[in-house]
Amino acid sequence: MSVTAAQGFTAAGIAAGIKENGKPDLALVVNEGPRRAAAGVFTSNRVKAAPVLWSEQVLKGGEVSAVVLNSGGANACTGPKGFQDTHATAEKVAEVLEGHSAGEIAVASTGLIGVLLPMDKLLPGVEKAAAELSPHGGEKAAIAIKTTDTVHKTAVVTRDGWTVGGMAKGAGMLAPGLATMLVVLTTDADVDAAGLDKALRDATRVTFDRVDSDGCMSTNDTVLLLASGASGATPDHGEFADAVRAVCDDLARKLIGDAEGASKDIRIEVVNAASEDDAVEVGRSIARNNLLKCAIHGEDPNWGRVLSAIGTTGAAFEPDRLNVAINGVWVCRNGSVGEDRELVDMRYREVRITADLAAGSESAVIWANDLTADYVHENSAYSS
Amino acid sequence: MSVTAAQGFTAAGIAAGIKENGKPDLALVVNEGPRRAAAGVFTSNRVKAAPVLWSEQVLKGGEVSAVVLNSGGANACTGPKGFQDTHATAEKVAEVLEGHSAGEIAVASTGLIGVLLPMDKLLPGVEKAAAELSPHGGEKAAIAIKTTDTVHKTAVVTRDGWTVGGMAKGAGMLAPGLATMLVVLTTDADVDAAGLDKALRDATRVTFDRVDSDGCMSTNDTVLLLASGASGATPDHGEFADAVRAVCDDLARKLIGDAEGASKDIRIEVVNAASEDDAVEVGRSIARNNLLKCAIHGEDPNWGRVLSAIGTTGAAFEPDRLNVAINGVWVCRNGSVGEDRELVDMRYREVRITADLAAGSESAVIWANDLTADYVHENSAYSS
Repeated sequence: MSVTAAQGFTAAGIAAGIKENGKPDLALVVNEGPRRAAAGVFTSNRVKAAPVLWSEQVLKGGEVSAVVLNSGGANACTGPKGFQDTHATAEKVAEVLEGHSAGEIAVASTGLIGVLLPMDKLLPGVEKAAAELSPHGGEKAAIAIKTTDTVHKTAVVTRDGWTVGGMAKGAGMLAPGLATMLVVLTTDADVDAAGLDKALRDATRVTFDRVDSDGCMSTNDTVLLLASGASGATPDHGEFADAVRAVCDDLARKLIGDAEGASKDIRIEVVNAASEDDAVEVGRSIARNNLLKCAIHGEDPNWGRVLSAIGTTGAAFEPDRLNVAINGVWVCRNGSVGEDRELVDMRYREVRITADLAAGSESAVIWANDLTADYVHENSAYSS
Repeated sequence: MSVTAAQGFTAAGIAAGIKENGKPDLALVVNEGPRRAAAGVFTSNRVKAAPVLWSEQVLKGGEVSAVVLNSGGANACTGPKGFQDTHATAEKVAEVLEGHSAGEIAVASTGLIGVLLPMDKLLPGVEKAAAELSPHGGEKAAIAIKTTDTVHKTAVVTRDGWTVGGMAKGAGMLAPGLATMLVVLTTDADVDAAGLDKALRDATRVTFDRVDSDGCMSTNDTVLLLASGASGATPDHGEFADAVRAVCDDLARKLIGDAEGASKDIRIEVVNAASEDDAVEVGRSIARNNLLKCAIHGEDPNWGRVLSAIGTTGAAFEPDRLNVAINGVWVCRNGSVGEDRELVDMRYREVRITADLAAGSESAVIWANDLTADYVHENSAYSS
């Protein structure tokens, strides 16, 4: 499973002592080849963590031999010293793996912003992780990148002779994201860097980019896709892209399902929009409405707050033609009262909101979470 | 005080039975003249409540004889029947006041969206309110427009022979707003509709429009300014505009100070921006960051979340030149760790965040609230 489901990869997850509680906090994923093609998508936040600035440069070469990831510290807003630490981490990985240069090593970090990493623990941790690298190390790697995650998240899709697998931590989206989202995907299909890049961008656009747990964008979000070519199979692009999207979709759902303090997963489908952009804009506006998110938490089918959220967008629609369904009950018809709201059953974790803009034929799905007292508690005590 | 501080106005606030708990829910404010000039600013939400659609039309005439306001129901998303109800309310006010037409009567409503008003209670309530009109009725009117407000809000500024006063309910901003913000301002200065309009727009732009309690925009937000000319004084425009801004500023601060479930008032000042628009964009992004709002609630000077929020904007800045102070302590210098965060004292209700973009000389102040478990509780049970 995880990043070692595909052939040609080894991984490890260990406790380096970066986290004060002694839990696993360092993961290493190595592409053993024969191919070492890679693609990456990063946060669109303009304040980027040192490892993001580093890895963006590494990915420009289209080749990655290994990824080192740490939890317990984001290494964001840490100035020139933070960047030097990321560089030193990549150098250390290149050294212990032998035969590689730091320029092929991607780095990802997650944790509190504005704190330097304890390099006296991290660098020995790299040695320890390298010693434990294994073709069965995927689960341990997935565990080591957890921060506030309650479970580790992995996904695998196997097709005709080749596999795409991966691991994720956090809950959120590339732009924006709740806490940091780190994702490493691996495949043994024989695909070049350009093919990986296209498949990854197309997949993230409709999966991680449409998960909007709390409207906040991280400085560290990173999604990497590495190909070893070890299966010898060369799928056609459509087939490959489909598998990548399926793995991303699975991981994205798992991120939403484990969002900090959430009690509901909200599937917002915007239909009959004039354009896909309109559908996404409306979906995001609904997803980020704190009043609605509170109402959903209270199992209150408060469709007025959905209309309020739609009304703040620039999408094409007429207010008196809007329709809204909650869990299949059309509680709002033509911008006014529709079916009896008492018919809406909201006892289950998944809540489905359908917003019909009656303005075209495009649609989009955005996933969000409710807003809960637990979210407040978890995030008011995070760094204290 | 309130809307009857200025000469030439009478007001009343009564319990019409619209609210099931029997509390005051209907207010009437009457301009007794001699002048009846008026200006209004309304929600920019495209889904507008019936009273907003009505009052926008009334204000086009530049003349308002009376304003009738109800709490206990927003009359939003109520279709053609809702608009008919607003019209009937204005007709009723015109009838009981005698000598006026419905086209001079502004209507404002606040409460739950998607529910028709109980007209069998509201219309007799108008008669009852008219019977109680008094030059000392301002406080009662302010009390009758409360929904989740814990206190009623009024403000008065008196200058050389003339006065501007007003009342407000809700907490939020014209675009967007938490719950509905209703504001009625009155003056006995002799100012025409054009002068009122300019003073009101200039004032709301830097007061109510910069209050961002929870990032949500109401369907009902309404700010009205009525002039009776009863003082006979004709202040110059700058002097008048200054007084209107002072009253708006006072009311805006009171709205933030009484926001639903809030435990902190957050003053966000963005300085050294390339433009005022940049400063406002950055201030709003900080104001709406749920993770930061939780951190402030936890008295955690988590400046990393401030930088994260700045990074999502399109404003001109370089990440490594950003500086952030919390309560006067520059915890972030040049995009990295600054003074010791332990020096920040966050025990008091007001929290000051200063974001220095180091990109110009413009600035703006945005007021926000923290995000608390009480906010979640209050808004998850609102309509149930």
